[in-house]
Amino acid sequence: MRKIGKREVEDMAVGAAVLASGGGGDPYIGKLMALQAIDEYGPFDMITLDELDDDAWVCGSHMLGAPTVLVEKVPNGREGVGAVDALEERFGRKFDAIMPLEAGGLNSLLPFQVAAAKGVPIVDCDGMGRAFPELQHVTWSLFDIPACPAVVCDEKGDVVTIDAVDNAWAERLARNVAITTGGSVFMADYAMTGADVKRCSIPGTSTYCEVIGRTIRECQEKNVDPVPEILEFLGAYELFRGKLDDVSRRTEGGFARGYAHFQGIDAYHGKECELRFQNEHLLCKSGDQILCSTPDLIAVLDIETALPITTEGMKYGARGVVIGIPVHKHWRSERGLKIAGPRYFGYDFDYVPVEERVKNNG
Amino acid sequence: MRKIGKREVEDMAVGAAVLASGGGGDPYIGKLMALQAIDEYGPFDMITLDELDDDAWVCGSHMLGAPTVLVEKVPNGREGVGAVDALEERFGRKFDAIMPLEAGGLNSLLPFQVAAAKGVPIVDCDGMGRAFPELQHVTWSLFDIPACPAVVCDEKGDVVTIDAVDNAWAERLARNVAITTGGSVFMADYAMTGADVKRCSIPGTSTYCEVIGRTIRECQEKNVDPVPEILEFLGAYELFRGKLDDVSRRTEGGFARGYAHFQGIDAYHGKECELRFQNEHLLCKSGDQILCSTPDLIAVLDIETALPITTEGMKYGARGVVIGIPVHKHWRSERGLKIAGPRYFGYDFDYVPVEERVKNNG
Repeated sequence: MRKIGKREVEDMAVGAAVLASGGGGDPYIGKLMALQAIDEYGPFDMITLDELDDDAWVCGSHMLGAPTVLVEKVPNGREGVGAVDALEERFGRKFDAIMPLEAGGLNSLLPFQVAAAKGVPIVDCDGMGRAFPELQHVTWSLFDIPACPAVVCDEKGDVVTIDAVDNAWAERLARNVAITTGGSVFMADYAMTGADVKRCSIPGTSTYCEVIGRTIRECQEKNVDPVPEILEFLGAYELFRGKLDDVSRRTEGGFARGYAHFQGIDAYHGKECELRFQNEHLLCKSGDQILCSTPDLIAVLDIETALPITTEGMKYGARGVVIGIPVHKHWRSERGLKIAGPRYFGYDFDYVPVEERVKNNG
Repeated sequence: MRKIGKREVEDMAVGAAVLASGGGGDPYIGKLMALQAIDEYGPFDMITLDELDDDAWVCGSHMLGAPTVLVEKVPNGREGVGAVDALEERFGRKFDAIMPLEAGGLNSLLPFQVAAAKGVPIVDCDGMGRAFPELQHVTWSLFDIPACPAVVCDEKGDVVTIDAVDNAWAERLARNVAITTGGSVFMADYAMTGADVKRCSIPGTSTYCEVIGRTIRECQEKNVDPVPEILEFLGAYELFRGKLDDVSRRTEGGFARGYAHFQGIDAYHGKECELRFQNEHLLCKSGDQILCSTPDLIAVLDIETALPITTEGMKYGARGVVIGIPVHKHWRSERGLKIAGPRYFGYDFDYVPVEERVKNNG
């Protein structure tokens, strides 16, 4: 068990937003909520997978909806706790620990606040190792762990408990509750034993996020360009450098969908690059050439600060480095690609790992 | 307790469709489901409010969605039972009886099938005395009885349990589950004691429906025009006679919305009449003159057979008698008009009882 204070939270928020692939919620809001929770409850308790008992009872905690909505509809801080309370009541059993569903500016940190309010530790892991748009896009799905019963809470106090036939239907039903109640909701789901958490999760995600954020911060403090350091630490690839000259974003079906277009600068002068997103970036291409696709991670870092730019935060004139990060091997399996590969999201091509695309594209 | 056999079911289906004000689901489907249930379980048991114990535990059973959908997506018969099962599990208590939410071709009879499958009687009452489009439009709402916990089931086996802040939010959330899962769902809700059922319901609705249906049938058997008999029995008014020359109907937001236009015939030659509906008929007008509005009932009877024509069943060329039926006094109260009067449905005029409109319109 280690304590997570304000410095760690600030670093995690930045690192999580890098892994969030453009989604996962605004890191600024996530950070503010977590800092306020530390003021209220003291530093957070975080345990590693090794420190988690096999028979512990653990659930995921997260928001679901369009990140575009969250920027204006800031959580009141009770929704996430209400969801876990209702799930405990359903099972008639208290949870021993809470875990994040995904890496994301908000969704990495929200569970810390929920865990602190519940007086239990957070587990240093998650179900994606990145952010994905939909509820069923977790490694837990790959191991047949049900999302349900899944509890959905809104800010008014409405509670909806979903027992769906599968995790994809849980997503559809939860997404529509989000749409009905204003675009974003808070959830508790994927209740499982400590043994299942160890078997099916991506380990160490929070610490990984913290190191990414710390690396960026320390480079800034030393006035060193953080991008090369980050690329090396992540084993990632620079895909493009450009100036954002077009962004189209609509909040549709409970997601932020759209595209962003960059004109190349520096070595990329005269070239162009387009990103397609559904909350998270799913595709990066230059003309007809695909540079990177889901489930590999695509992130846009501010060219000066290396701070990640979320899909809802992209603005005309932003100068960014687009990077591609190889995804965890769980997602490169046949089943992983079936639920989160390009074809799942409606793209008519097969997945090729980013490292091969970079090599082939020369 | 009395037994409800096939003859009673056939009469009830017709009478309920008259009170359904155009909505409440196709009486043909409701009848087929009930007849099949009688083959399976034997005649239904129905008890009056007087025969219901004060400490009995009772819930409502019904479908929710657009009647237009039900015509193509016929229920498999298990959804309604699944909803009651889940609500029993939630309370940890079996229900002693089941009651309909509304009068309607399907929603009057579906609960009989559910009650038979559960081995409990149906109560001769309902929560509307007619059909209304939305879940909160029950007399139980007027007495502050919560719809929640409300269980929603679809035909695949998805179960969603709603604990909403009020009955209007329960409606919004349930409606969106219906939209998500294909346009119609089955529900169990408004769990209450026998004492509350007696205090807050419309008594004797099923028997009333049966008498309406029987009156129409017997007139047909005697080759007598049933319309005058029905008007007298219901204390209702003939508003118009015409030929349907335009109908616009769309399935939108989980409702069947639209209008129907009639050209006058017989005494109404040269006049016209328009009905506006949201599942149920809400407004009947001739030019600028309002003939009848919600919460009073508006029904269209086939001019030859006096059989009711539902909003989803209206076709070009149909010749109908439009009738207005004074609604139960519960709905004419200030609170009743607030939740089910013309202004609730977006019309910019105050409610005037149909008997006054008929008198004033001369």
